[in-house]
Amino acid sequence: MTILGPGLLGASIGMAAREYGVVKRVQVWARRAETRQACEASDWCSVAFDSPGVAVAGSDLVVVCTPVDRITEMVREISPVLEKGSLVTDVGSTKSRICRISARLVPGVSAFVGSHPMAGSEKSGMDHARADLFRGRACLVTPTEEASPEMVDRVVRFWRDLGMEVTSLTPEKHDEIVAHLSHLPHLLASLLCLQLSRLPATWRPLCGNGLRDATRIAAGSPDIWRSIFEENREELLRAIDGFEEELARMRSHLHNGEWMRVRQLLEKGKSYREDLD
Amino acid sequence: MTILGPGLLGASIGMAAREYGVVKRVQVWARRAETRQACEASDWCSVAFDSPGVAVAGSDLVVVCTPVDRITEMVREISPVLEKGSLVTDVGSTKSRICRISARLVPGVSAFVGSHPMAGSEKSGMDHARADLFRGRACLVTPTEEASPEMVDRVVRFWRDLGMEVTSLTPEKHDEIVAHLSHLPHLLASLLCLQLSRLPATWRPLCGNGLRDATRIAAGSPDIWRSIFEENREELLRAIDGFEEELARMRSHLHNGEWMRVRQLLEKGKSYREDLD
Repeated sequence: MTILGPGLLGASIGMAAREYGVVKRVQVWARRAETRQACEASDWCSVAFDSPGVAVAGSDLVVVCTPVDRITEMVREISPVLEKGSLVTDVGSTKSRICRISARLVPGVSAFVGSHPMAGSEKSGMDHARADLFRGRACLVTPTEEASPEMVDRVVRFWRDLGMEVTSLTPEKHDEIVAHLSHLPHLLASLLCLQLSRLPATWRPLCGNGLRDATRIAAGSPDIWRSIFEENREELLRAIDGFEEELARMRSHLHNGEWMRVRQLLEKGKSYREDLD
Repeated sequence: MTILGPGLLGASIGMAAREYGVVKRVQVWARRAETRQACEASDWCSVAFDSPGVAVAGSDLVVVCTPVDRITEMVREISPVLEKGSLVTDVGSTKSRICRISARLVPGVSAFVGSHPMAGSEKSGMDHARADLFRGRACLVTPTEEASPEMVDRVVRFWRDLGMEVTSLTPEKHDEIVAHLSHLPHLLASLLCLQLSRLPATWRPLCGNGLRDATRIAAGSPDIWRSIFEENREELLRAIDGFEEELARMRSHLHNGEWMRVRQLLEKGKSYREDLD
């Protein structure tokens, strides 16, 4: 297996795949020399290269773990030198553009099948990697029409072997879903922090655990999230439209003193949240 | 001491005050017979009454722990029978209306000084009470002009004895602050859950820990939060206005593809969040 970009997810995949005996050997490409050294000093990585094309040699599974705005150029770079019959996947949080382009870049006897293992956190970087990151978490696999059932099955089995609950769906449906379940929540938490940052600093010690929990995701990397928002702009804007409607409706009930309606809406929200546990 | 309404906060105050030796004796009023029985079976409560007026007899400290929309009527009921020189406080999440009315209801030689121990959670009820609920948490004390410095000092010392970090400010400033730090975050989390509840139920297994954290507060009691929103309507509407501006600005940047601006705003949000830890 080759991992291109050993950050939190990439390094965790390497660790998990070795620990669970899913692959024999893990090769890595990393941009920075320190990262390559850290990988080679670890017990899960066999060798680290400074060229993606060299790093994929001999691998029948390639996992692209770069930020979402770098995935298709990475696939473009490795496509000509892939081993025949190899499977390429990624871990990007957005899928439509990435999968449509990548599926055409990878030649016929090999295949690109996109993945989104939902196991990230507000932390990033190899230092936070761990082999059990994926256990019991959801993974969305997003094949396009180009992929054979065998290739789809291989990627599904790979994530299952790492302990994930795998669901298969189209890249477009994926982007619609995560816009609501992940990107909109991130945006709201971030905007709440932005608004609070404009208030007097003397208020900060008064923040409680509820607020800390509610805004934890806002500590995520601005670069990673900017790229995600850019990739999934259309679906995110639709999700924002939906939220603005909910907010305007609630605002009007508050303004008009329609307290039974306010209570009803709070009750529905509570009921949804309790079903998540 | 008398506790009127031994829910999560009221029962925890009783436990803590007894455990830390802050009071000699805890009397309780509870509306429901089962609650009174549970209190009397506990080791922190000496006696439980079905009449608030009887429950305050002999106490020099009364803590009103009912929902915010019942506090002033409770103060009205006990005022004529309070021991001379006794201090009345509450634990309500809103303060302006409650403190202005209650301060006038409590006769001169006694005093009402409002409190807001910020130690609640999405859980409610005596079953979740614990003596260490208040340790290290913030408590806002909101005296009006009627209260003597001695009375303010008594209530400040009481919460400090339970382990809290106490800040004193006007009821109006309190309501402005908590509208932003507590009520708006609750409203946003609840509306996000409401929006997600309208989406296909098949999406629910895809919810990650980020979303769970971000929406945890939405599981709070709809009755309690409806009352809080009603009490603090004006400040909450102002906080919503501020959030709508942030959302509209971000929406426009996303729509126009102004990615450097998007990144800047995400960076500011992240920076605020990291300062909370």
